[in-house]
Amino acid sequence: MLIGIDVGGTNIKSGLMDMNNNLLFDQSRPTGTTQDEIVNNLADIINGLQEKARKEFNKEVLGVGIGVPGVVNKELDHVFKCTNLGWFDIPLRKILKEKTDFNVYLDNDANLAALAEHYIGSLKNKDTGVLLTLGTGVGGGVIINGKPYRGGNGLGMEIGHMVIGENFYNCSCGKNGCFETFASATAIVKHFEKLLADNNVTVDHEISSKEIFERAEKGEELPMKAVDRYTTYLATGIVNVINAMDPEVISLGGGVAAAGDFLLNILTKKVTDTLFVKGFPSAKINYATAGNKAGIIGAALLVKEEIA
Amino acid sequence: MLIGIDVGGTNIKSGLMDMNNNLLFDQSRPTGTTQDEIVNNLADIINGLQEKARKEFNKEVLGVGIGVPGVVNKELDHVFKCTNLGWFDIPLRKILKEKTDFNVYLDNDANLAALAEHYIGSLKNKDTGVLLTLGTGVGGGVIINGKPYRGGNGLGMEIGHMVIGENFYNCSCGKNGCFETFASATAIVKHFEKLLADNNVTVDHEISSKEIFERAEKGEELPMKAVDRYTTYLATGIVNVINAMDPEVISLGGGVAAAGDFLLNILTKKVTDTLFVKGFPSAKINYATAGNKAGIIGAALLVKEEIA
Repeated sequence: MLIGIDVGGTNIKSGLMDMNNNLLFDQSRPTGTTQDEIVNNLADIINGLQEKARKEFNKEVLGVGIGVPGVVNKELDHVFKCTNLGWFDIPLRKILKEKTDFNVYLDNDANLAALAEHYIGSLKNKDTGVLLTLGTGVGGGVIINGKPYRGGNGLGMEIGHMVIGENFYNCSCGKNGCFETFASATAIVKHFEKLLADNNVTVDHEISSKEIFERAEKGEELPMKAVDRYTTYLATGIVNVINAMDPEVISLGGGVAAAGDFLLNILTKKVTDTLFVKGFPSAKINYATAGNKAGIIGAALLVKEEIA
Repeated sequence: MLIGIDVGGTNIKSGLMDMNNNLLFDQSRPTGTTQDEIVNNLADIINGLQEKARKEFNKEVLGVGIGVPGVVNKELDHVFKCTNLGWFDIPLRKILKEKTDFNVYLDNDANLAALAEHYIGSLKNKDTGVLLTLGTGVGGGVIINGKPYRGGNGLGMEIGHMVIGENFYNCSCGKNGCFETFASATAIVKHFEKLLADNNVTVDHEISSKEIFERAEKGEELPMKAVDRYTTYLATGIVNVINAMDPEVISLGGGVAAAGDFLLNILTKKVTDTLFVKGFPSAKINYATAGNKAGIIGAALLVKEEIA
């Protein structure tokens, strides 16, 4: 069996996958706050899952993959930067080797979600594909020649920080105009709140991107204004990705994907209208289908990719 | 020997290359205007070079590669769109097979320039690299895993039409904010002319990007303003490419490259300052070195890549 672990800012999700890519068990626990605490949690999870594999499934664990929300080096053994976790320069393979039996493999979480899509989801049988996760921020994972593409230095895709215009607020990275300040779930909420304020509308609850899309679909004016701007900039970013690397498929994941066909129909039309080369095959746009356990599955698949 | 042909909007450059990548002969002639005329010129060039190879070099021509300023299909036999040549949907391999002895191989000219850089220039020994050509427009060619990367559909890189902001004039493609409206040689000239007009300065000659860079380097205020804005947007586009695909090297070619260290020093600082992940290895920025015959050499190298 293989252990897959998906380290998020809030929770660590983990599980046991068999060699046919079936997730047989999964669990979640709070990530922890300090580096020591998180590392001890990871060691605990690995040792616990190894025991479970032996006792409940009568199998050995062949390897451990871990996805982190940040930058990993090309050797997949060292975390360079995870802003959300406050991690900089952590030799995580070495540390976990001392606390478990395993040489873990590390990767960026968006790369692993793309890998899961490639094995069991929306990028299956595609040589070239991009997964865009539209959530708190915008992340990207890339498949090229049927393999995860991590770039020349291991930075991979940081597409959320591609500048595509000028925005009314700055990105957390310090720049103005980053794709994720237009196309994340956070971005549409911020813009809708601005529209409400500009129109002197007060609300008594926290706005979610889900609410905005639902109300827009029902025909409400201000929510539709927000969706209109949102899809215009999302289309701009998607066409930029097409102009940069011409994938066969661009899959959309993350919280915004809940908006379903309503979003996809508006978006697809805007993308088609702004393509540089019209009338030639170009990227299909669809939703990610590997589900909310794609992070765990992708992490386990990383082991397959690396040791098989 | 191999024949390499570089079809430009104005001239067709062509030559004979030996199997050790030495260009032994090259020539140039006007492209022609109608499709028939251009195709006949190409057939003429191929037949003439074959004769020359036999008579002067006592060698057989093993294949013909042709670079075109546009989109070629994945089979490298059909030109889909060359706006400059007024070409749409031309089965060029089939047409030229009837007029010569050869099954020609076709590719986008920027891809072939990148291929030449990969064999003999600034991308040598790099697995992952991008060539940006900063001329009349902005073109891009990509090397991934040591091979030309043509995308999932054959569109390759149309990076000149990546939207990076809002500009004071529209792109020829109809959109506003395309990279090439900020970062081409044409773009800096247009902006400088706007600065002159805004300041009621008249000039008695045609402005070139070369003149602007030279006058800026001497410390003149308006040219320096133009260079400042130019390098800011060029850095934005380059960092976008880094955030999209993290190449080991980004090489700059085209007319703007004549600005040398003056441009490169300002640009490198702005790129470093706006990187998303700082303190981690990321793309080196340098100039293309394969020279102005890179298009011919790249076209001949395409044959090597395809038939070797």
